[in-house]
Amino acid sequence: MHLLAYLKTGPTGMHVGAWRHPASRIDDILEPSRYEHIARVLEAGRFDGCFFADLFGLYDIHKGGFDTYIERGGQISFLDPMVVLPLMARVTEHLGLGATLSTSFHAAYHLARVLGSLDVLSKGRVAWNVVTSATDLEAQNFGIGALPPKELRYDIADEVLEACCALWDCWDDEVFVLDKASGIFGDPRRIRYANYVGKHLRTRGPLSIPRSPQGRPVIMQAGASDRGRDFAARWAEAIFAAQHGQAAMKQFYDDVKTRMATRGRAPEECQILQQLTVVLGETESIAREKADYLDSLVDPELALAASSSGLAVDLAKVGEAGVAGARGNQGMDGTQQRIEQLMQNEGLTFDQAVRRGTRFTLVGTPAMVADRMHALFAAEACDGFVVAPTVFPGTFEEIATALVPELQKRGIFRKEYSGRTLRENLCGPARS
Amino acid sequence: MHLLAYLKTGPTGMHVGAWRHPASRIDDILEPSRYEHIARVLEAGRFDGCFFADLFGLYDIHKGGFDTYIERGGQISFLDPMVVLPLMARVTEHLGLGATLSTSFHAAYHLARVLGSLDVLSKGRVAWNVVTSATDLEAQNFGIGALPPKELRYDIADEVLEACCALWDCWDDEVFVLDKASGIFGDPRRIRYANYVGKHLRTRGPLSIPRSPQGRPVIMQAGASDRGRDFAARWAEAIFAAQHGQAAMKQFYDDVKTRMATRGRAPEECQILQQLTVVLGETESIAREKADYLDSLVDPELALAASSSGLAVDLAKVGEAGVAGARGNQGMDGTQQRIEQLMQNEGLTFDQAVRRGTRFTLVGTPAMVADRMHALFAAEACDGFVVAPTVFPGTFEEIATALVPELQKRGIFRKEYSGRTLRENLCGPARS
Repeated sequence: MHLLAYLKTGPTGMHVGAWRHPASRIDDILEPSRYEHIARVLEAGRFDGCFFADLFGLYDIHKGGFDTYIERGGQISFLDPMVVLPLMARVTEHLGLGATLSTSFHAAYHLARVLGSLDVLSKGRVAWNVVTSATDLEAQNFGIGALPPKELRYDIADEVLEACCALWDCWDDEVFVLDKASGIFGDPRRIRYANYVGKHLRTRGPLSIPRSPQGRPVIMQAGASDRGRDFAARWAEAIFAAQHGQAAMKQFYDDVKTRMATRGRAPEECQILQQLTVVLGETESIAREKADYLDSLVDPELALAASSSGLAVDLAKVGEAGVAGARGNQGMDGTQQRIEQLMQNEGLTFDQAVRRGTRFTLVGTPAMVADRMHALFAAEACDGFVVAPTVFPGTFEEIATALVPELQKRGIFRKEYSGRTLRENLCGPARS
Repeated sequence: MHLLAYLKTGPTGMHVGAWRHPASRIDDILEPSRYEHIARVLEAGRFDGCFFADLFGLYDIHKGGFDTYIERGGQISFLDPMVVLPLMARVTEHLGLGATLSTSFHAAYHLARVLGSLDVLSKGRVAWNVVTSATDLEAQNFGIGALPPKELRYDIADEVLEACCALWDCWDDEVFVLDKASGIFGDPRRIRYANYVGKHLRTRGPLSIPRSPQGRPVIMQAGASDRGRDFAARWAEAIFAAQHGQAAMKQFYDDVKTRMATRGRAPEECQILQQLTVVLGETESIAREKADYLDSLVDPELALAASSSGLAVDLAKVGEAGVAGARGNQGMDGTQQRIEQLMQNEGLTFDQAVRRGTRFTLVGTPAMVADRMHALFAAEACDGFVVAPTVFPGTFEEIATALVPELQKRGIFRKEYSGRTLRENLCGPARS
């Protein structure tokens, strides 16, 4: 089983009320120590890695402004993850380090270089969560009025990935000679141009950086649309999936692994990880009460605003019937699917579902939660989980000290890191 | 007097043979510890800051390829400075942290966010060395065939700076409320849209990050052309100048300060810092022998290749007469001016000058070098220096322990940092 941590450089992971919990730290969101601490905790818990969700802007979809998000503390990504991850790399040796970066707003050369630089500095521990972006507000920050159509965004994303791979392959492993006496620094015959020419972009290379120990960053992906799944089947080595309930997870899992097989990829070349929130307690009833207390901290307006962001539709204006028409080219199919699954699984109305939020939560003692995770894993509903925090950093501290040992006891989770790089830890040994 | 350190994430600063010196470290160019150590050394020496020169590619101007640069170890910038600077921020409290980033290849929103993020994380210590780029090879990595014409590049650069300033001004100082009981996270009335609309670009905002303690990064600039000087007179708070000899320095200094006055800026709002290399010894004769030894390590082909890069002309093909015709839209006026100044000051031919390289070097005992620096400063030929290393990190260690104390003894250099931010240290108290 594989575990990633879902992080943000802001107050809220998946649970928009959690920052209000007395034990949640919120005074250090702009401090290096916050990120160094969580990196150490996750490595002590033997997590494969972590990644930062991110946005090229500040959500302002709900009620036509950013007021709800700022006032109530929701879904803000303050700092650029690329300046935070080096700090986390520095205090760890094994933990994978992921950043979300959009193929719609950056040049391939820049993406290849900045991710490659961190991959070299961290000795092969970087993951890139590839997104094509889903809101016009990001396009407007970038200086264009609206996002390109989704199909075109994915066409461009395919080319950005092709170009980045060409750039990461410019250097062979053994370029450096470093002979002071003869004055020979490196061997230029081991470097070549990329000369990538696509329909939408081109780049010449060579990249200016040596090959990292894992060759190139691990590719992550989270798109749930048909095109997104195809893109993942081609490129992804880890998928951040967010289905609601075992049946939907299993359906997604089989669909993506089948698409991979069609492309000649083995199942273990991509780990499908389901979004998960956990609330742990000494007894089931304590855990339940903790979960209820956490939910009592959710501001209903902010919960609605968070669903508005995911759908890229102002739910304060538009009800269930209006969503399909209003969405247009924006919003995430995954959010829509999850709302539908939640309505079906728990018999909720649309209004109840969007106000509740669509996290998948397991509540119980560590042993109970480990059993549920084990069952989902054994049923091949997923290869592991992307765990989002509630109380930060407490949730991760609890997981590392109480839940992970239960998983280890069941023989489904590593006791020590076995690989040198993130890819080796994530995709190395086949599923047992 | 103000001091910045010139750094690269590669083997060579200004002196292309220095990596071959027995005391030069070259096995740790890709290691975090290299950059953390130099940051500590520079802070111990009370430098205002440091900055990384950078290139959006690998030079391949000389003999139509990158062979000379890779084989002989010249002018390579491996790692993206933005992933190295966070590490240096983490081990220091006062040192300014500068990155070179081009306005020709990045969106304003990205520049404002990544620089702003580091500015917030470092509590107000970031500088941005603004360049418009000077080689088509960079344009080709970015996916366009050739650089836009220089005038257009600067028109765009003006708008990028305007847009970035609008983005950095989106947040007032006191946005956070962080009241868990009431659930109020921040005050949205203290955030506004940028709504920047220029001729060449636009961005809407708001930026997703809080205001840094210095409001926005310090703007550095190095352009020596007429348009570059105008740009600096408008925007720069520190200029990396590279004239050769006191007369040329003085002329440049007066020219820029006059241009600043025309725009209503006080002289102390921008520090003009001259490029400098030093070779120190216990006696003048030891220092001279050290300098000669260092020069003996320069590979003549690489020296020529380095001049080729600066002029963006293949000097292996084109001689003095052909340079003007071959340069076109590429290359740096500063390199050309410096070659001319060197020929004039030292009676060299063009061929001798380009093979020698155009660094301005002071050689002698710490007291002698401090006297020369003092004299240039007192003559208002500059406000300080950008010191490039020869032996790395030895040069900076010597400067911190031997040269800086001499400058302090003369009462022209700080003994302790007085400002909270880089801007306060750099532009705070007027010249005394």
